[in-house]
Amino acid sequence: MAHLTDQEIAAQADIKPIEGIAEKAGIPHDALEMYGKYKAKVDIHKIEGNEKQSKVVLVSAMNPTPAGEGKSTCTVGLADAFNQLEKNVMVALREPSLGPVMGIKGGATGGGRAQVLPMEEINLHFNGDLHAITTANNALSAFIDNHIHHGNELNIDPRRITWKRVLDMNDRALRQVVVGLGGPTRGVPREDGFDITVASEIMAVLCLASDIIDLKKKLADIVIGYTYDREPVTVGQLEVQGALALLLKEAIKPNLVQTMEGTPALIHGGPFANIAHGCNSLIATNTARKLADIVVTECGFGSDLGGEKFMNIKARKGEFAPDAIVLVATIRALKMNGGVAKKDLGEANVDALKEGIANLEKHIENARKFGIEPVVALNDFVTDTDEERDFVLNWCKDQNVRVSLTKVWEKGGEGGKDLAEKVLEVLDEPQNFKHLYENELPIDQKIEKIVTEVYGGDGVIFTDKAKKQLAEIDRHGWGDFPVCMAKSQYSLSDDPTLLGRPTGFKVTVREVVAKAGAGFVVALTGDIMTMPGLPKVPSAVHMDVDADGNSKGLF
Amino acid sequence: MAHLTDQEIAAQADIKPIEGIAEKAGIPHDALEMYGKYKAKVDIHKIEGNEKQSKVVLVSAMNPTPAGEGKSTCTVGLADAFNQLEKNVMVALREPSLGPVMGIKGGATGGGRAQVLPMEEINLHFNGDLHAITTANNALSAFIDNHIHHGNELNIDPRRITWKRVLDMNDRALRQVVVGLGGPTRGVPREDGFDITVASEIMAVLCLASDIIDLKKKLADIVIGYTYDREPVTVGQLEVQGALALLLKEAIKPNLVQTMEGTPALIHGGPFANIAHGCNSLIATNTARKLADIVVTECGFGSDLGGEKFMNIKARKGEFAPDAIVLVATIRALKMNGGVAKKDLGEANVDALKEGIANLEKHIENARKFGIEPVVALNDFVTDTDEERDFVLNWCKDQNVRVSLTKVWEKGGEGGKDLAEKVLEVLDEPQNFKHLYENELPIDQKIEKIVTEVYGGDGVIFTDKAKKQLAEIDRHGWGDFPVCMAKSQYSLSDDPTLLGRPTGFKVTVREVVAKAGAGFVVALTGDIMTMPGLPKVPSAVHMDVDADGNSKGLF
Repeated sequence: MAHLTDQEIAAQADIKPIEGIAEKAGIPHDALEMYGKYKAKVDIHKIEGNEKQSKVVLVSAMNPTPAGEGKSTCTVGLADAFNQLEKNVMVALREPSLGPVMGIKGGATGGGRAQVLPMEEINLHFNGDLHAITTANNALSAFIDNHIHHGNELNIDPRRITWKRVLDMNDRALRQVVVGLGGPTRGVPREDGFDITVASEIMAVLCLASDIIDLKKKLADIVIGYTYDREPVTVGQLEVQGALALLLKEAIKPNLVQTMEGTPALIHGGPFANIAHGCNSLIATNTARKLADIVVTECGFGSDLGGEKFMNIKARKGEFAPDAIVLVATIRALKMNGGVAKKDLGEANVDALKEGIANLEKHIENARKFGIEPVVALNDFVTDTDEERDFVLNWCKDQNVRVSLTKVWEKGGEGGKDLAEKVLEVLDEPQNFKHLYENELPIDQKIEKIVTEVYGGDGVIFTDKAKKQLAEIDRHGWGDFPVCMAKSQYSLSDDPTLLGRPTGFKVTVREVVAKAGAGFVVALTGDIMTMPGLPKVPSAVHMDVDADGNSKGLF
Repeated sequence: MAHLTDQEIAAQADIKPIEGIAEKAGIPHDALEMYGKYKAKVDIHKIEGNEKQSKVVLVSAMNPTPAGEGKSTCTVGLADAFNQLEKNVMVALREPSLGPVMGIKGGATGGGRAQVLPMEEINLHFNGDLHAITTANNALSAFIDNHIHHGNELNIDPRRITWKRVLDMNDRALRQVVVGLGGPTRGVPREDGFDITVASEIMAVLCLASDIIDLKKKLADIVIGYTYDREPVTVGQLEVQGALALLLKEAIKPNLVQTMEGTPALIHGGPFANIAHGCNSLIATNTARKLADIVVTECGFGSDLGGEKFMNIKARKGEFAPDAIVLVATIRALKMNGGVAKKDLGEANVDALKEGIANLEKHIENARKFGIEPVVALNDFVTDTDEERDFVLNWCKDQNVRVSLTKVWEKGGEGGKDLAEKVLEVLDEPQNFKHLYENELPIDQKIEKIVTEVYGGDGVIFTDKAKKQLAEIDRHGWGDFPVCMAKSQYSLSDDPTLLGRPTGFKVTVREVVAKAGAGFVVALTGDIMTMPGLPKVPSAVHMDVDADGNSKGLF
């Protein structure tokens, strides 16, 4: 098996018709809309059940490294382990973005024996959700430019349009463009840029909406830019929220697929975890909560980034709480956090582990800060040594935190049973979930609280621009929104080179932007890339498809 | 019924589960990939049958006018009429483009009682085909810019990149743009532009491919631009034809839907009829030919444009011939061709009819030039008078051409039975199909032949630029390609204001561009718009969706 790619392992899996998976999940047949034999959209109006009786297990992680931690793999494997323990379980995941699939080895479908299927279709186009979001996003751009072209009744300042176009593509040449060139029949010239689709506010809105009516309301609230008088202009003023919601009427339905071991999985929505909140849709999570006793779900990057946003944005808007938190760590990532270069990770190095484990320590503290007891999942890797394993396991015992050596990549659910049992212990204990802040706290103090309590920093520096924006946000009545931090995923600080557990740092907030549709305020720190680029040799050159439609080169 | 919109009529229709439609069509159940309850993709490898025993009825038309002729409506109604006559019939249509749906009242799903269902899903996203084409097209653009960014090994001249980006959107501000701005991390600055997706060569390639292996070969042949030494650069040189084909592996499968009367319909592909060849996919037509005794299909605009290309491009590449041609005409369109303004079309005007009918006369001659006997379908409209109807019917008799007054909009298949019976007469007669030219004829002479014989012009003027391009096309070995004319649809000439049957005109060819992937040479005449714009009040502002996902504002 060591020589098989994830795609080859997936191709050998015994995939079952999705009707059977739906039946197992308790989804009535008439709620299914088939997309081929192995995927279906689910009509949520036909799902019954009480989501309040379900337990939510959130899979988060230490800070990620270029070595890869396998959070999706652990999420899938943990769900399969619950399945093997005969629990009524569902997994709720994010949808992969096509851009990175074409660019670098990647995908969000897990790996080894802990994958979701059909991996090719999930990695490519997947029921059209991201395409629908791309289309709605760019339709809005076309409506804006068209409005200006036809007389600009709303007095939109073309220099202050904040709404960007998007493509589900890694395309650096589109980061900064000028549109509307070529004379009066070709619109009004202005600067613009393309983000990757998952960075679109429409993705965030779709993931936070409770249903299509709520979606329409949130779409109407999106601010597309400002007038010459600096007043916000909304989608509602352009009167196109109905058309945008119509374009999203299928995309808002969660997608049912299966793990390699036949556990029902809902994969739906995938907002960028560094600029948006980085969790699968609220609709998918709530649908899973209605159907299953245990819902395993993940959030983007570490507990400082996706984890904090899960608690303060998604759980708040969804009015629910996680009942347990799993923190994925690997010995390789801990060693990198202890100063080892990627090329040296194959060598045993307990000293580096001792340094790097301070990173994990902070993530454990973070889970407890939200009132939830974590379980550390030490995701086993072939180069790990027994001495290294023992160090981490013993360290966890000293910290009084549950830990499990998981082998889900190699063994699937069987390799996650111990982890599942430890998570069950937490689920049996009462937890005391709390948000980090109340909505009423001013935005700058919310940011201050996140930086000092979750990142472990000393404070926040607001640029003059950010200060002006904070005042405007107050003036427009958006001060009650939760904050969505845009920060490097690699460090607890805003400096990606500060690994381990940095202290004595301040975080610089260079811009503060309200996303009135999604209902949060984005605080930008450092350089956050919203349109990735391709490497010199994109993975696309290794991709192929044969006469029978079998693909090659996906991972 | 006069007060119901097409969408309201469609919503009242008795739509049947697609499995039953497939069974009726003779499609085995395991060849079906469901997309919801009423749409399916068809695995063509599982379809058996002899396409040579099938008869193909091509629905073409007189030159279109802003009054609308109802060609799709007649195509659907004619198929339903055959169905009522208990013929084994299938209809093969083009997919609508989302851009115009958002912009102006429109859609390609027919009208009244002659529509294909489910109309909303066909008009919006329709199984993701156009999104897959958009994605493949823009992935190629990203690969090109990425290649240049990373050292430009192929020596591509950024000023001579002919490959444009696309969106399935009406967005005039994207017609001419500059990309790659913002410094070295944001690519190499260059001029670019966006076409609407249906104008992408990838759409043309998909529609002319016989299977996915042929698709990959055609994709590899696409020329994306030229080197600094003026040599063509192909997709094959970028080594991404496999990745592009992989992105299209679902889009290449034809889509099965149904008419309002339960006739099986394949809707697949929709290349622009003015810059590309304007017909549904060869795969869909050939699949329908394997399954049905009679296949009713359409082509874009009039017999001069889509009709000529159907004969000289699609039928040639597919090695088949149409067995009958229906020419759709309306009294309103004939009057407009006789000089009546749109606002005056409600008034009877036999004198204008007498003038305008010369347009129809030329289209009848054109069908006969290809060796196929036409049947005129006079598509009835509520403002037509008996005197006007009688004039057209009598005129056709004088011309010795079959004619039928069809009422498919009002009555569905019942209103097209007389037309169907007249088409059956033609199908019983031997036809003598011939292409207008052989592949070996030089490109300029092919164009000359189309202009003089099909348009009725006196000859062709080639600009200096076109002459240079013709020489280059010869040098690169593309001289054997058929020609794909890009011309105004409104006139037989290249001047959209010359209605009726103009004579004594010459056509100016301003550019000649080889599409080596699609395998044709595009001859550009006049101003051909490849990215439409939106009107001041786009139809999007009337669109909406309710809590149950029911839509409003589609037509």
